[in-house]
Amino acid sequence: MNTDITRFGVGPKIAEAVAYNGILWVAGQLGEPSGTVTSQMREALAAIDRILAEAGTNKTRILSTQIWLADISTFDEMNAVWATWVPQGHTPARATGEAKLAGPEYLVEVIVTVALN
Amino acid sequence: MNTDITRFGVGPKIAEAVAYNGILWVAGQLGEPSGTVTSQMREALAAIDRILAEAGTNKTRILSTQIWLADISTFDEMNAVWATWVPQGHTPARATGEAKLAGPEYLVEVIVTVALN
Amino acid sequence: MNTDITRFGVGPKIAEAVAYNGILWVAGQLGEPSGTVTSQMREALAAIDRILAEAGTNKTRILSTQIWLADISTFDEMNAVWATWVPQGHTPARATGEAKLAGPEYLVEVIVTVALN
Repeated sequence: MNTDITRFGVGPKIAEAVAYNGILWVAGQLGEPSGTVTSQMREALAAIDRILAEAGTNKTRILSTQIWLADISTFDEMNAVWATWVPQGHTPARATGEAKLAGPEYLVEVIVTVALN
Repeated sequence: MNTDITRFGVGPKIAEAVAYNGILWVAGQLGEPSGTVTSQMREALAAIDRILAEAGTNKTRILSTQIWLADISTFDEMNAVWATWVPQGHTPARATGEAKLAGPEYLVEVIVTVALN
Repeated sequence: MNTDITRFGVGPKIAEAVAYNGILWVAGQLGEPSGTVTSQMREALAAIDRILAEAGTNKTRILSTQIWLADISTFDEMNAVWATWVPQGHTPARATGEAKLAGPEYLVEVIVTVALN
């Protein structure tokens, strides 16, 4: 029994998040494919808020993040949404790069690693 | 003495895996460059199985993974191999994106972070 | 109070590094945009040395790294700098892929996760 690992939103290929040793690893989050970078970024961050709440933590405890943009020229548009969401005094280590995502309609993916409470 | 860190497969530039605080970080694994996405994905996952066994853990304890595809249009081909390998009930957090790899003959790279036993 | 998380170089969007549970997550480090892959790689690694020193650790304790190159054809040039910097016997798990970075003048980004002392 691996009772020390807690998996959230377990699907056949991916779990939404996995907790172990006080750390939560969250699957890359996407927005709705019909939207803009702004709307998809907002939705991805809202999904992260929901997942962190389910695991008993919150965005003040994010340790690190990677943000992947399908087109790096949308960096500023992504970053404006990020700036309104990330809690001041609790900003994480971050890296941002261009990577095409699962389908061409996906514009941004956000991966976070978070401290549990 | 850094006896609290255990490194596996230590080479001059990279270690195959590094254990610390109950967590194993594994280097990005590739398949044989002559192959297809299917064969390279199988080989990368077999390499992960071998490395995890050497470190005393296994694929039921993977916490998170990143999968990098040289061509994102091969997503479904990669995913079919993943689906047959990943243990049900123990799926990790995952993110998949397109990234050209060390040489054009490499089609997929798999990075895992794993709980030790 | 989240006194168990220590953030270094906290800015409005990003922290330079975040410590928790004996692990340090460092933001992706870049070099000066005017330079070559060689100079940018050296500067990124020097920035990592500075950040690790501030957090009380050093490059012998790096657990894992991701290296993102704006142009994967510069892999060997990047790797030559890496080889002179990484301490023998203490090499980390590594993955290297191509990703365009925040601006076209940035040629390499280095992300490390490090054990604290």
